[in-house]
Amino acid sequence: MASSYKVTYFDIMGLGEPIRVLLSYGGLDFEDFRVQRESWPSLKPSMPMGQMPTLEYNGKIAHQSMAICRFLAKQVKLVGKDDWEDLEIDAMVDTVNDFRQKIAKYHYESNEQLKEEYGKILFNEIIPFYLEKLDSQAKTNNGYLVGGRLTWADLVFLGLLDYMEFMAKKDLLCKSPNLQRVKENVLSVPNIKKYIEKRPNKH
Amino acid sequence: MASSYKVTYFDIMGLGEPIRVLLSYGGLDFEDFRVQRESWPSLKPSMPMGQMPTLEYNGKIAHQSMAICRFLAKQVKLVGKDDWEDLEIDAMVDTVNDFRQKIAKYHYESNEQLKEEYGKILFNEIIPFYLEKLDSQAKTNNGYLVGGRLTWADLVFLGLLDYMEFMAKKDLLCKSPNLQRVKENVLSVPNIKKYIEKRPNKH
Repeated sequence: MASSYKVTYFDIMGLGEPIRVLLSYGGLDFEDFRVQRESWPSLKPSMPMGQMPTLEYNGKIAHQSMAICRFLAKQVKLVGKDDWEDLEIDAMVDTVNDFRQKIAKYHYESNEQLKEEYGKILFNEIIPFYLEKLDSQAKTNNGYLVGGRLTWADLVFLGLLDYMEFMAKKDLLCKSPNLQRVKENVLSVPNIKKYIEKRPNKH
Repeated sequence: MASSYKVTYFDIMGLGEPIRVLLSYGGLDFEDFRVQRESWPSLKPSMPMGQMPTLEYNGKIAHQSMAICRFLAKQVKLVGKDDWEDLEIDAMVDTVNDFRQKIAKYHYESNEQLKEEYGKILFNEIIPFYLEKLDSQAKTNNGYLVGGRLTWADLVFLGLLDYMEFMAKKDLLCKSPNLQRVKENVLSVPNIKKYIEKRPNKH
């Protein structure tokens, strides 16, 4: 039987990984279509906004990774208990993505001097600030990011963590015990554990 | 009677404006608390993630402007007709914000040489690309961004437009007739029209 879901992304974890983790959590069968770098230029114009990842479902195609994750969170029932908790989850997801973008700005900077200057601010101020705030949030929520239980914010965090650590060239959680608990709590879910064990471990 | 909603932001449109527009659309009474620049350093540490805007509601406080907008969209019933349409709205909102961030990168660049170099790419490639995609989307949807009718994506677009045009120093829609229709459609809603007429017009 054909998969109902098709994820199209580069052959790396990157922004595609939270989507793959959410689908795996729900035990939803999906085609994990991985575009090789050399095929991308010819494929790019056919993508909505010229970007990946995309999700195909029931003959329709969607883009924007976090919008896709929010949709899948509803499918697999990892959303908030009411509209306010959904707002708290959304705010956490946006904060994790702000953090990712600040690290990406460093990783993708091609001017060595600018990279070094920004690196000082990133490693001395920005990363410690975010980690402290996020770790405190995880402490309050008993090893989860929102609501004291597993939500899609935790899966997004776990899904983006490898990419962020790859870009920062740094173990980000070594001094953040409560964020380590978030990571462990997500990884202990049997469906996710199973996915992580067999996934292509590429950056 | 005290307002149920309190919006805290700088005394400008910026990222606060989509929130104010959504509250106004719904006829929801709100306290429009505007922080003057000189008060910000002392207030900043008390803000979640050190950022504004925030929304206070029923004694709780939320941050992240688009997460707040999504919550308010549910309150005022400007969401999609099903989960897939919500995904399309979310993807459009994220796209509009990507566009805003690309313009902001230009506006906030303090190095004149880097600003000039990036400006060439921004004005010759990035802005035309986004406007063509968004205008085409608005054409397909008959003067709206998603679903052929008013949703919170249109209000976010209108809410951020002034800020984007201020940062780009440019009338962005002059060659985008369908995006002009989106703007007109939002501005013709009586509650929004009333708000726009009396709002502080500050950048």
